[in-house]
Amino acid sequence: MKLDSSNPTGNGRWVVGVDVGGTKIAAGVVGANGQVQGRVKLPTDTSRPEMTLQAIAHAVKEALQGAGLEASRVNGIGLGIPGKVDPATGVSLLAVNLGWQDVPVKSWLENQLNLPCAIENDVAAGALGESLYGAGKGLENLVYISLGTGIAARVIIEGRLYRGSSGLAGEIGHISFDPNGPVCRCGGTGCLEALAAGPALAQQAEAALQAGRSSLIRELPGYGPKLSSELVFEAASQGDTLANEIITGAGSHLAYAIYMLAMSFNPQAIILGGGLSQAGNPLIAAIETGLAQWIPRSPIFREVMRQTTLKTAGLTRDAGIVGAAAVFNATGLNQTLNHK
Amino acid sequence: MKLDSSNPTGNGRWVVGVDVGGTKIAAGVVGANGQVQGRVKLPTDTSRPEMTLQAIAHAVKEALQGAGLEASRVNGIGLGIPGKVDPATGVSLLAVNLGWQDVPVKSWLENQLNLPCAIENDVAAGALGESLYGAGKGLENLVYISLGTGIAARVIIEGRLYRGSSGLAGEIGHISFDPNGPVCRCGGTGCLEALAAGPALAQQAEAALQAGRSSLIRELPGYGPKLSSELVFEAASQGDTLANEIITGAGSHLAYAIYMLAMSFNPQAIILGGGLSQAGNPLIAAIETGLAQWIPRSPIFREVMRQTTLKTAGLTRDAGIVGAAAVFNATGLNQTLNHK
Repeated sequence: MKLDSSNPTGNGRWVVGVDVGGTKIAAGVVGANGQVQGRVKLPTDTSRPEMTLQAIAHAVKEALQGAGLEASRVNGIGLGIPGKVDPATGVSLLAVNLGWQDVPVKSWLENQLNLPCAIENDVAAGALGESLYGAGKGLENLVYISLGTGIAARVIIEGRLYRGSSGLAGEIGHISFDPNGPVCRCGGTGCLEALAAGPALAQQAEAALQAGRSSLIRELPGYGPKLSSELVFEAASQGDTLANEIITGAGSHLAYAIYMLAMSFNPQAIILGGGLSQAGNPLIAAIETGLAQWIPRSPIFREVMRQTTLKTAGLTRDAGIVGAAAVFNATGLNQTLNHK
Repeated sequence: MKLDSSNPTGNGRWVVGVDVGGTKIAAGVVGANGQVQGRVKLPTDTSRPEMTLQAIAHAVKEALQGAGLEASRVNGIGLGIPGKVDPATGVSLLAVNLGWQDVPVKSWLENQLNLPCAIENDVAAGALGESLYGAGKGLENLVYISLGTGIAARVIIEGRLYRGSSGLAGEIGHISFDPNGPVCRCGGTGCLEALAAGPALAQQAEAALQAGRSSLIRELPGYGPKLSSELVFEAASQGDTLANEIITGAGSHLAYAIYMLAMSFNPQAIILGGGLSQAGNPLIAAIETGLAQWIPRSPIFREVMRQTTLKTAGLTRDAGIVGAAAVFNATGLNQTLNHK
């Protein structure tokens, strides 16, 4: 590893991005403009932390091979990891889906692969990815909201990730919107996540079907006692009343969260990412409907929204990999290092 | 005006702070540690913008005279102004209380007084004052909430004022907490400000008295058809049930706003300032009661509050003047300029 001032244009600044999920590990080699080569996807072995780390190392090697690059051509590795991480020490403090607690990811991988590593929370990685390569490219301030099996936001201020005093800035998924609402996996009640994330939509549909509501959902392929949110979205797109009611309710809660974030941060953009933000998802339309109800009723919100744009994520298929690479790029290491 | 590198300790770095309110202008000369000399208070002449500006210039001169300082010993003037300001151009865009629209405050005063001026919104000035001299001294990240005739927050991130994309970051007073609630002066309905600011408390008491509720308020000196929030606080401190109900309700709404801000910003401190935050005000106790209800119900909020402290403002009597001086200091001009 040596400093290379002869290559200031960014050519050859390759970084491996690794998106570590509870069921799969996705990796790829990411170039200076966010282009991805050597995509690889492996199942996540969560039997022991060492096994997961070995699977990550394996994914990195496969991605390099797939891209036809020697490790020496790569500046480093960025990882997006669910749960609570300490980027300074490179330790995953708690990742329930992975069965991890205090796992020294950075030092283990650096020893194993002989490349510098940077880690961040996966939603923060998503925010950095959008900021560097996606819908937030060129913006100073943005709020990124991840909508999926969980709901969380992360905030970019002056082009950098704003973590807050303990890395929890943006944890809007666990603001209670209804003290008498459903129990959340965090232990709270009526959290936004328990009202509007994917599993919440599925549970609301299950409860309504059990209570005897009529719905197209029962006729769809894949229908069973345990529903998925995909089934609810599919029914909604076919005009199902129950599914649309559920999605409208979730959209209304999410619109309120966006209202609150817009008034608090007045960012240049609020970017919706995560699995439920894909183009055509009826949840996005429901959020827009919810906002259209608040904006005319709140003159200051209307003024804020003149300079705060709502967007869906610019990165889609490779969002996890590119976001993870952005974690490494955001450390600044990639500005000065180049391996020969 | 000349650069003075021989005086790096800050001795003699005097700044005039001017707090411009709808009824009075308060000014004073503020030293490097936030100490105030030559306090002066003048009525605000709002008959014409030129008259108000002349009153400000007059207040500056009186403050200098009171402090026994020549204008040449002062580095500049900072002003806290209600409403919407553009600090870059030094123009007050809109200040309803002053009858101002597009008033070039900075250029007018600089011509008149021959000293550099910096202007900011008054709540932002309060946040900067707490950050530089008050309860937020030494902190990187804080949220300052002003509780008074209005409610607004302003945010310090990495030691600097975070304004957002149009200067509206922190406008939490105009988040609607109840779409069917009372009409707010912004034109919205059920805004936090319309539920929990001083005038809202007075209006709630008036309505209850008109509806025939029994209350100590009727026996207090100063009682009349038009109530003040001070009367409500006085009655509450004497154990009045109605007054305490009203304050408990406002405290509960403010606690929710603090919950939301803590989850969004996870700052090192949330600082309560403004006229209703004085020590002993029953509203502060009501906010603490409200928070004590949310914290046990929300595990993530509990975790956030391990690193996010709620405080009342450190600056009291001179908060407006010191905050205004902090506006000038925050520009960085005071680091390099010194008049001889």
